[in-house]
Amino acid sequence: MNGNRFGRLFQVTTFGESHGEAMGCTISGCPAGLELTAEDIQADLDRRKPGQSMITTSRGEPDDVSIKSGIQDGYTTGTPIGLVIQNKDARSGKYEPFITAPRPSHGDFTYSAKFGTRNWGGGGRSSARETVNWVAAGAVAKKLLAREGIELKAHVNQIGDIEAPEVSFEEIKAHSEENDVRCAHPETADEMQELIADYQEEGDSIGGSIYFEAQGVPVGLGAPRFDSLSARLGQAMMAVPATTAFEFGLGREAREWTGKERNDDWEFDEDGNPTPVENDHGGIQGGISSGEPIYGEVTLHAPTSIPKSQQTADWETGELKEEKVIGRHDPVLPPRGVPVVEAMLALTLVDFMLLSGRLNPDRVDDQPGTYDTDYHPSNPRNE
Amino acid sequence: MNGNRFGRLFQVTTFGESHGEAMGCTISGCPAGLELTAEDIQADLDRRKPGQSMITTSRGEPDDVSIKSGIQDGYTTGTPIGLVIQNKDARSGKYEPFITAPRPSHGDFTYSAKFGTRNWGGGGRSSARETVNWVAAGAVAKKLLAREGIELKAHVNQIGDIEAPEVSFEEIKAHSEENDVRCAHPETADEMQELIADYQEEGDSIGGSIYFEAQGVPVGLGAPRFDSLSARLGQAMMAVPATTAFEFGLGREAREWTGKERNDDWEFDEDGNPTPVENDHGGIQGGISSGEPIYGEVTLHAPTSIPKSQQTADWETGELKEEKVIGRHDPVLPPRGVPVVEAMLALTLVDFMLLSGRLNPDRVDDQPGTYDTDYHPSNPRNE
Amino acid sequence: MNGNRFGRLFQVTTFGESHGEAMGCTISGCPAGLELTAEDIQADLDRRKPGQSMITTSRGEPDDVSIKSGIQDGYTTGTPIGLVIQNKDARSGKYEPFITAPRPSHGDFTYSAKFGTRNWGGGGRSSARETVNWVAAGAVAKKLLAREGIELKAHVNQIGDIEAPEVSFEEIKAHSEENDVRCAHPETADEMQELIADYQEEGDSIGGSIYFEAQGVPVGLGAPRFDSLSARLGQAMMAVPATTAFEFGLGREAREWTGKERNDDWEFDEDGNPTPVENDHGGIQGGISSGEPIYGEVTLHAPTSIPKSQQTADWETGELKEEKVIGRHDPVLPPRGVPVVEAMLALTLVDFMLLSGRLNPDRVDDQPGTYDTDYHPSNPRNE
Amino acid sequence: MNGNRFGRLFQVTTFGESHGEAMGCTISGCPAGLELTAEDIQADLDRRKPGQSMITTSRGEPDDVSIKSGIQDGYTTGTPIGLVIQNKDARSGKYEPFITAPRPSHGDFTYSAKFGTRNWGGGGRSSARETVNWVAAGAVAKKLLAREGIELKAHVNQIGDIEAPEVSFEEIKAHSEENDVRCAHPETADEMQELIADYQEEGDSIGGSIYFEAQGVPVGLGAPRFDSLSARLGQAMMAVPATTAFEFGLGREAREWTGKERNDDWEFDEDGNPTPVENDHGGIQGGISSGEPIYGEVTLHAPTSIPKSQQTADWETGELKEEKVIGRHDPVLPPRGVPVVEAMLALTLVDFMLLSGRLNPDRVDDQPGTYDTDYHPSNPRNE
Repeated sequence: MNGNRFGRLFQVTTFGESHGEAMGCTISGCPAGLELTAEDIQADLDRRKPGQSMITTSRGEPDDVSIKSGIQDGYTTGTPIGLVIQNKDARSGKYEPFITAPRPSHGDFTYSAKFGTRNWGGGGRSSARETVNWVAAGAVAKKLLAREGIELKAHVNQIGDIEAPEVSFEEIKAHSEENDVRCAHPETADEMQELIADYQEEGDSIGGSIYFEAQGVPVGLGAPRFDSLSARLGQAMMAVPATTAFEFGLGREAREWTGKERNDDWEFDEDGNPTPVENDHGGIQGGISSGEPIYGEVTLHAPTSIPKSQQTADWETGELKEEKVIGRHDPVLPPRGVPVVEAMLALTLVDFMLLSGRLNPDRVDDQPGTYDTDYHPSNPRNE
Repeated sequence: MNGNRFGRLFQVTTFGESHGEAMGCTISGCPAGLELTAEDIQADLDRRKPGQSMITTSRGEPDDVSIKSGIQDGYTTGTPIGLVIQNKDARSGKYEPFITAPRPSHGDFTYSAKFGTRNWGGGGRSSARETVNWVAAGAVAKKLLAREGIELKAHVNQIGDIEAPEVSFEEIKAHSEENDVRCAHPETADEMQELIADYQEEGDSIGGSIYFEAQGVPVGLGAPRFDSLSARLGQAMMAVPATTAFEFGLGREAREWTGKERNDDWEFDEDGNPTPVENDHGGIQGGISSGEPIYGEVTLHAPTSIPKSQQTADWETGELKEEKVIGRHDPVLPPRGVPVVEAMLALTLVDFMLLSGRLNPDRVDDQPGTYDTDYHPSNPRNE
Repeated sequence: MNGNRFGRLFQVTTFGESHGEAMGCTISGCPAGLELTAEDIQADLDRRKPGQSMITTSRGEPDDVSIKSGIQDGYTTGTPIGLVIQNKDARSGKYEPFITAPRPSHGDFTYSAKFGTRNWGGGGRSSARETVNWVAAGAVAKKLLAREGIELKAHVNQIGDIEAPEVSFEEIKAHSEENDVRCAHPETADEMQELIADYQEEGDSIGGSIYFEAQGVPVGLGAPRFDSLSARLGQAMMAVPATTAFEFGLGREAREWTGKERNDDWEFDEDGNPTPVENDHGGIQGGISSGEPIYGEVTLHAPTSIPKSQQTADWETGELKEEKVIGRHDPVLPPRGVPVVEAMLALTLVDFMLLSGRLNPDRVDDQPGTYDTDYHPSNPRNE
Repeated sequence: MNGNRFGRLFQVTTFGESHGEAMGCTISGCPAGLELTAEDIQADLDRRKPGQSMITTSRGEPDDVSIKSGIQDGYTTGTPIGLVIQNKDARSGKYEPFITAPRPSHGDFTYSAKFGTRNWGGGGRSSARETVNWVAAGAVAKKLLAREGIELKAHVNQIGDIEAPEVSFEEIKAHSEENDVRCAHPETADEMQELIADYQEEGDSIGGSIYFEAQGVPVGLGAPRFDSLSARLGQAMMAVPATTAFEFGLGREAREWTGKERNDDWEFDEDGNPTPVENDHGGIQGGISSGEPIYGEVTLHAPTSIPKSQQTADWETGELKEEKVIGRHDPVLPPRGVPVVEAMLALTLVDFMLLSGRLNPDRVDDQPGTYDTDYHPSNPRNE
């Protein structure tokens, strides 16, 4: 089975299982000359890591990233960046009851049926632990995008039936990291936290959603139709574990809007260029970025691993059993999903920045000129 | 710009613009030995073609498909299948006002800004006319899937605020082609038709959605995480013109369900194999098909080309203008989108059937043995 | 079976069989704004087409190319370019004896064994007729490269044991199209022609080779190791029908040279940049272009279809048979292979020009500004 | 820069520099159920590693491989296999003179010109140290191929002007590992060894070549034209560092053979199937394997790093300099290249075994049935 590669030019390739020895990620296609340290990556890993708060699993993983290649004197060299993150606190024993009796709605059965085997400790490859690799790669993508003036941020906008009011991009940046739920609206965050605690106490879990937004994206990203910006975002976000819906712009609501209501008239901006009066189109027109903010939502279903008793069918013994999943699991996914969604958004955008020639695939300008060959006439920077 | 290729092993490559000379599609990776005629393809093209009814554009395109290669004596040969569909009824003149003054929320501006030019007749490459290629390729995919016992069908389940009640797969197959709206619930279809007529009269358009379902899909399709079945379906469906949301299983609603509610307990089927009691998971667990029906929804926004007056900004003259889009346009997209959604579903599934080894990539068994080398020991069919 | 796609960003996808209805080729990834007409493509097709001379097959194919999409007012639009070339003079009857009795060393047996069938007329998909598509796509690539100052040319440097002396790039450009053999050394060309006539008279055929060279290639093309410039050239050239060897720089001879002999010392060019004193490295160092001319050779074996009697084994009847291949076949391949080798060289180089950011993937500057949006600040040309 | 990925279904992705912290390789697409230990991989790594003999660099690298994922209880699980190999004995200091003054014919200049920087220690990414990753991945491929009855082996058949006589596949398997040169003809091996010693003493190096052969390859592998078996082998072998020529079958010699001489007549094998009388076609006809042994040659130029004085041009100081490359370098490449060539041959073949459906992409049969779901009706093994 393949499926561990993302990106056409900014290529991410991953390995690792929840209770294996290590997670790892190879990035190729990152231009040379980007200043990059393990700390840059660690900051995002810390936002995703377990044990941050009461509403995340208590598994104690430091998630320390080690850069094995692709960096010289603190700058990227244009060659593949190898990242490895050791797994430390894996306790597989708790999963033994489920080796031949699959947890309801988890990947246990489909993996075993496909492969005739699976790494059963903690979900193995199907575990959301895999996303540690994505967040690591996404941190590199974000650094590249920031140089080009592209900013992106996500926050939790719904848990169960508690929905946050609309908040601005500035508010999301300012407030989403201030509370454990990662909701940028503090009052709603408190309500969400209570709701989660209630479900947790019952031994149950709950679904929710994440709103994402990117600003500063230039006009012209996307390769319609099959690789339109919306199609690639759709793939990226639907790859996030537990995702059941992807929407951009008006999303599902667009089914009830008329053309006249949804269409965004054109006016001129201060430089005399056409610009849409509103942004009901969500920053993408005809599959290509319009220059307006790109925004949308991702729905994550409730975690399937819950302490409540559930019925399973043991294919070895042929018996129906009632089982409780006792591991250390999150009662809700969106709070830790925020950096994951940001990472997939960043990886998608940086790939299109390269594909559309907005980023030089060989190198960017940060690095000091120690080994510089800038004066060489073939150097595209000299043209 | 690339973006005209779909599929890793069942590969579809397209060309063509709305008012260009022809549309075309090359399929490679279709196994040899499949009985295939132009009529097989034509049947689906006729479901998509313009001028079928009052609620579709009156553009008169026969959409006759011509097979240029890859077929011998009525059977596929395993080599690329070249398809060409001539454009006949293209009247570009009506689009002249929009050459430098983009239609609101259409791809006019983004294409021109990206390329410095565009084929402006009828939307050019950004037109949904491109989907004639997809439907042609999808018809071939459906034939392959049918041999494996996989059936799929879509219907229109919402237009504006009129939503169809839940209908069974059998009902969808029986009724969705009986009315112009392609809604499998006849009473709702009537209401939808009236609503569409109202908007059409006003010179406006309206959004809607399509429900799709596939049955008989074996356990084990999908390559998590980046190419999980849900991720690839997400890409496929978000590539459909005007799509703003993709959902599978509970979709967006999953955000309000608890784990206990959504999880599907296991029981044994009549053969003694584990099978889920319900199918709230939508046929995909851990990114891999579970053997249960795969279902979901796609939201299509209202057509952007409407006769109502809208404001545009002419980048050549620097003037704001009020314009009406006079072409021959659909007042609503889902009815003609049904075969398109089915095509993308079929293309995604057939690709995974090949990727998972469920389909022999070299050949299937239909063809008579005239040039047969079956007795050769290297022939995998003899093993 | 796939295998009909070439290029990562400049993507060529082909279809067609020797005696099918048409050949075709879709190019995507060609930037907008390139002036392009059918005549530009036709010029190269005419160099490859059959019936040019006594030493090429007498099959009468006009090979007229028709552009179906991707062009507006004589300039590319950045969207896929669909090309179709009708097959006219196909006489399949002569191939009937070989339907179940494979021609020696042709693809008859391998195709039938793989697919259980094959298009047996004239070799079907395995025929070198497929290269008409490559030459068409290569003509577009050459136009793009010429804008960047990259020139390339090939000529026939050996037929049987007659080898041309070394000739300069200027001589190749000046003389290779002056004789039927396409050898840039006129005296050698005469000898080759006689040798070919001798073998033709005997009912036999003969092998030969093509020398190719590209000048003006900037430093920095190639993605070592798996996609180094030499690896990709290796794939491109080995794809040419009948090719049994690919060499660049010293090629096979390098096995007898010492490091000191082969290494090229560095000096400074007139601009004060490092430049190699010689070019024994063939323009590629460490898998990346060095700025020096890229050169090499391709060996093509003798055509397998010969009038001389040969033994075949009929898998239908179980009988050994002596057969003569009576079709209209070339007695030698390199003369018509010259534009094919040039095409594959051009396709490889243009792809790396895009991959390394030397060419803007969205557009080049040729087109007049009728629909120009150049003033738009997001336009990368304005930066 | 990308270029660190090989294979369409059996996918290998690599990272690492000569003097970086570690080398690494991720394999995805290996079916589940293959028995695999670090020792299986280590055996081939030991054949490639430095310090084996007088004619290899004395750099002391144990090259211990560590498996980070994809294995459970000694069997593959079908999920990505992460491999890491630490670099231990890196002494970068000796390369300081070459930071801004490139070694002749090495990748120093092209890397610096492309990226504006490079990891200069020992050649960084351009070093043949990268091939440790290939050999590791190749060892896994070989295990899979062996299960299918495919054997492959290479040996050194020429060093300088000393050429080995033709030896059989059995002899290659028996003798090639018996001497330091890895030549299967013992007397020639002695001569080669002396020649190498002579050049080494002079401070020079010498070129050579490797012959490879695969037996048991079934009919039907290859995806002509662009991905014909010969084209993909061409890419694979030309990717090997220092390779300047790739030949299969008669190779370069085919240019002097007539059609009648080279064509292989058909007869029937003992089972009554068509089989070629000889194998001058090298096991590939029409780009597809014929069932006969696949064989060919790869030419490797002399190592560029030599102690002899050479001229370089320092782009920082603008001075011409005479320099000697003092590191620990091989005087000849083919002996250590043998396992590398075998690895690339194995990786190419296993990929086509998957692409042609000869290998089940989900799983093979080795593993004990602990977590078996074999009885499940969707399991293709039960069909």
